[in-house]
Amino acid sequence: MASVSIPSNPTFPFKCRAAVLKEYNQPLVIRDVLVDAPKFGEVFVRTVAAGVCHSDLHMIKGDWPLLSPLPMILGHEGAGIVVSVGPGVTRFQPGDHVIALFTANCGTCEPCQTGRPACCNGHSTRETGKHFDNTTRIKDAETGEGILSMSTVSLYSEYTVIPQEQLLPVKKSIPLNRASLVGCAVMTGVGAVVNTAKATVGTTVVVVGCGGVGLNAIQGARIAGCDQIIGIDLLQNKLDFAKQFGATHVINGKEVADTIAEVHKICPGGVDYVLDCIGNAKVLEQGFMMIKGGGTVVAVGIAPQTQMLSINAFMLALTEKRIVGSLYGSARSQVDMPRLLNLYEQKRLMLDELVSKEYTLDEINEGFELLKKGEVARGVIILARD
Amino acid sequence: MASVSIPSNPTFPFKCRAAVLKEYNQPLVIRDVLVDAPKFGEVFVRTVAAGVCHSDLHMIKGDWPLLSPLPMILGHEGAGIVVSVGPGVTRFQPGDHVIALFTANCGTCEPCQTGRPACCNGHSTRETGKHFDNTTRIKDAETGEGILSMSTVSLYSEYTVIPQEQLLPVKKSIPLNRASLVGCAVMTGVGAVVNTAKATVGTTVVVVGCGGVGLNAIQGARIAGCDQIIGIDLLQNKLDFAKQFGATHVINGKEVADTIAEVHKICPGGVDYVLDCIGNAKVLEQGFMMIKGGGTVVAVGIAPQTQMLSINAFMLALTEKRIVGSLYGSARSQVDMPRLLNLYEQKRLMLDELVSKEYTLDEINEGFELLKKGEVARGVIILARD
Repeated sequence: MASVSIPSNPTFPFKCRAAVLKEYNQPLVIRDVLVDAPKFGEVFVRTVAAGVCHSDLHMIKGDWPLLSPLPMILGHEGAGIVVSVGPGVTRFQPGDHVIALFTANCGTCEPCQTGRPACCNGHSTRETGKHFDNTTRIKDAETGEGILSMSTVSLYSEYTVIPQEQLLPVKKSIPLNRASLVGCAVMTGVGAVVNTAKATVGTTVVVVGCGGVGLNAIQGARIAGCDQIIGIDLLQNKLDFAKQFGATHVINGKEVADTIAEVHKICPGGVDYVLDCIGNAKVLEQGFMMIKGGGTVVAVGIAPQTQMLSINAFMLALTEKRIVGSLYGSARSQVDMPRLLNLYEQKRLMLDELVSKEYTLDEINEGFELLKKGEVARGVIILARD
Repeated sequence: MASVSIPSNPTFPFKCRAAVLKEYNQPLVIRDVLVDAPKFGEVFVRTVAAGVCHSDLHMIKGDWPLLSPLPMILGHEGAGIVVSVGPGVTRFQPGDHVIALFTANCGTCEPCQTGRPACCNGHSTRETGKHFDNTTRIKDAETGEGILSMSTVSLYSEYTVIPQEQLLPVKKSIPLNRASLVGCAVMTGVGAVVNTAKATVGTTVVVVGCGGVGLNAIQGARIAGCDQIIGIDLLQNKLDFAKQFGATHVINGKEVADTIAEVHKICPGGVDYVLDCIGNAKVLEQGFMMIKGGGTVVAVGIAPQTQMLSINAFMLALTEKRIVGSLYGSARSQVDMPRLLNLYEQKRLMLDELVSKEYTLDEINEGFELLKKGEVARGVIILARD
């Protein structure tokens, strides 16, 4: 993509445009907004590319009210360029290319200290939609109303303020519309296989849902040397993507009477891992019947807030099956993402093939419509192109 | 206990007495039985001591019809003395003291080869109640009817035939009525903490159900250096045992309105591990609310065959919680049990305190009545005492 210029001396509040979620189940509204100057430890970023992710769609649909107080600027997967930095920022300077991380890491809580930083609970920003000082950084230019931020990154704004620990530097040789995907879909999918499931060479994997996250779970399994890698979806175009990304077998759930039986035909006795990349209790339940004894079902997609999962307690103990959650692919972002970017440069991780559609900010609602229809592998909003 | 003599030249079929499960929900019936000679790789054993375990009670109640075809001789936790050996038996000779293992290990199936021998699926004896050659070894002396065997050990018979891989040698200095418990309750409880949960120093543990298995989970947690160890039961006498075995806190479920809230009072944010040593879906569901993010619920007790467990799918992924099954404490019996016996000899593992009641074979139904009432830590049937 072409180069992107950044303002050399921004003045605050800085006026730009953003897509705002004002009401559940309604289109995002493009508004002029005012962005405050970055505070201590914060970075003012020009957003260049932001993915259209099912998690944003869950927020729009009101599936997770706990995580989406309103009004909110969504967008949690993306990349951009540092415009200016607040006091106390030592790791970045203007012009740096960065990937946004949607989980802050305090570094001192138990998950952070014990190798599970994706589950950091040192900050409560995920529930409040506010920055660490419990205030907002963006307001509506017309009404002056403060607008909350998804995961303190708010990448559906042309400019945004992000805490420095939620940024990862990225080489300028890697296009930002590719790097952006590493911040969520790639990390979540590959990480679920590699970090959470710890899948090893020769094991067998089912990935249910071959969208942005699922395709990355599939390529994570391919990179990890898994043997049978079975992609399941209801849409043939997604299954075609699945094969491209490394699925050795695909099952179209619409075309077979019983996906569980189909999996057992390919892998008699069941598979080692089933990854639910949709976020659906029924898929988890089916996964429990697809795994062999000792196998693991990984909940990768996050189900609607009230969905209950029902499994047989007798079989659980008797067969030592496992059901585990995977948040953000159990990401150790500062460690894992540079590795993923290296794999991309070595042409072992597919990113180019993942971006099947690009939109302008004004086209963002179209992006969500196509996501719902399943017509794209990953759509990306390009917020800055000169 | 006093020494036990064994017949020096047994002739087969060998007549003795056994407790037989002929009908669910009915008392076991003491019958004269005829035991066949051990076949290739099998050992003829005089049972000395056999535990009265909840798993046997589940079988009596018909909770697991899949595992208890009738008529069957129960008893899967016990120890005895080798009387004679069949052809091809190299590891045992008459007079050896042995612990019975209720899981056969074929050594070649995937679980056996990958360090999970408790889940060996090379033999189907658990479902058939027959020996490896698909025949029975014991028949009713009067009717001639073949009687099935629980896990090919059938320890509620004075004499029994056991495959050599289901025996572990034990030093003669360790009383058999103590050693017997290592074969199930001790291994299952300690193993669930140490092998399945892999609990480490300073972690926090809830054990629900402070019977034979639960008390061993508690002492497993104590030996592993866990910090808060919370025992939960409905009976005060069991909570007294729990404290004796190492619980730092106990909660009487009858005396508090909300056990989940009580756990969170002791360990704000939740505990690392909850072990359901009852085998109850409701306990697993409560456990899911007792663990912290990233914590693990371990299904140790095996629930009735039709019980379904219901948990929130949203929380599962978002908090990286884990629900895992533990069969037989994920036992590597030939490795773990000698270690457990060493811990007993070093006075670090409590066995003497576990045996709170002994019965004769004729008193076996009384043993199950007292088990139901929860009046004993572990009852043991003494089948041979000279």
